[in-house]
Amino acid sequence: MSRNVVGILGGMGPEATILLQQRLLATVQATDDADHLPLLIDMNPQVPSRIAHLIDGIGIDPSPVLAEMAQRLEAAGATALAMPCNTAHYYAPQIEAAVSIQFLNTVDLSVASAAESLGKGAAIGMLASPAVRLAGVFDAALARAGLNALWPADADRMLAAIRLIKARGATPEAQEVLSHAAAELAKDGASMLFIACSEFSLLAPSLSTPVPVIDTIDVLADAIHHHSQMKQS
Amino acid sequence: MSRNVVGILGGMGPEATILLQQRLLATVQATDDADHLPLLIDMNPQVPSRIAHLIDGIGIDPSPVLAEMAQRLEAAGATALAMPCNTAHYYAPQIEAAVSIQFLNTVDLSVASAAESLGKGAAIGMLASPAVRLAGVFDAALARAGLNALWPADADRMLAAIRLIKARGATPEAQEVLSHAAAELAKDGASMLFIACSEFSLLAPSLSTPVPVIDTIDVLADAIHHHSQMKQS
Repeated sequence: MSRNVVGILGGMGPEATILLQQRLLATVQATDDADHLPLLIDMNPQVPSRIAHLIDGIGIDPSPVLAEMAQRLEAAGATALAMPCNTAHYYAPQIEAAVSIQFLNTVDLSVASAAESLGKGAAIGMLASPAVRLAGVFDAALARAGLNALWPADADRMLAAIRLIKARGATPEAQEVLSHAAAELAKDGASMLFIACSEFSLLAPSLSTPVPVIDTIDVLADAIHHHSQMKQS
Repeated sequence: MSRNVVGILGGMGPEATILLQQRLLATVQATDDADHLPLLIDMNPQVPSRIAHLIDGIGIDPSPVLAEMAQRLEAAGATALAMPCNTAHYYAPQIEAAVSIQFLNTVDLSVASAAESLGKGAAIGMLASPAVRLAGVFDAALARAGLNALWPADADRMLAAIRLIKARGATPEAQEVLSHAAAELAKDGASMLFIACSEFSLLAPSLSTPVPVIDTIDVLADAIHHHSQMKQS
């Protein structure tokens, strides 16, 4: 294969993987199929639950499955990897260790993007899974950039909204939870919001907030676009 | 890999491949990610144009690329194959010859489904690419079932609508072309309509017709669902 093709560790959940494909389509001005960007997608909804492992403490470690998916994508011709699930980025080191191709890290890329417009010490409001907070998924990247995280007070409500979206799609109840959390974080002093959960990205188009928002799935779509257009080394 | 996983020959176009994933999601009553069905998707918008090859007569034969995609999906663990593009089913024999796993043939499955409710000699109105007609994609399957095909009079208009959807999505202009063709086919005596072009499937939910409609992408989603749930032999 003589082209750049990003391999997608997908299915966490399937809606998020579909959304990433849609956002990637939107990065292209297409006049025919051939203008669009290739992907190799392992849509694997059977990856052991990240929430069960990181929060409930009852689940098995999903990282061996993720490492195996990464290796299979590399073997099938992927020249870089991406994963539309912020929580699963907790396992990024194990994925990176399993392959020789680049992992387009949503967390690192999103924090780098935020750091371009925020001063040191600024706070980013996190619209994310409580699993992302508990597992410290963004902690190292934010610390390196001198940025702080603010979280909604009611973690259980955020988790319930994610589970609702996984089961029933972008319902008005879920939208209400997200809007409430966004307003709370802006009031608490966030200079910017991260939509850092692919389920919440489904609701992003109808979210209005008083501060700028970075949707991490768009950051990932842009990175995939960039990699796909690069000359091969 | 100990599960059934359908490999998707995708990207013809990407919107159709995304739509198949959405229709497959809709076949599942899910309470969490793990209830959904796995896929391995080769999203390859760079498959040589089927329209250029079959209609314009200026393009190269896409079948070697399709055969290679099929082999790569089989090597990556796919236990059956599916292709969300009716026109590309012209190349089904070359795909089937390249692999040892089953090809879930949208054309054969859709005609079999229609034959369950139609008597011999009935006519099916084809909402499809003129390439499907010119290449005779449905001819053998319809002949075996004793069914006839009816086509919209203005083939150029249908092709222009497909190109419009590939370039700009499901626009009102494209919707108007499809609705007009559906009414014309019903008036001409079609007992049933096939939506047999993935681009037209994008418009299917808002199409109202006086006769029953089978959307071939739903037939394919059901076949994928069935294969995924089968016990492995």
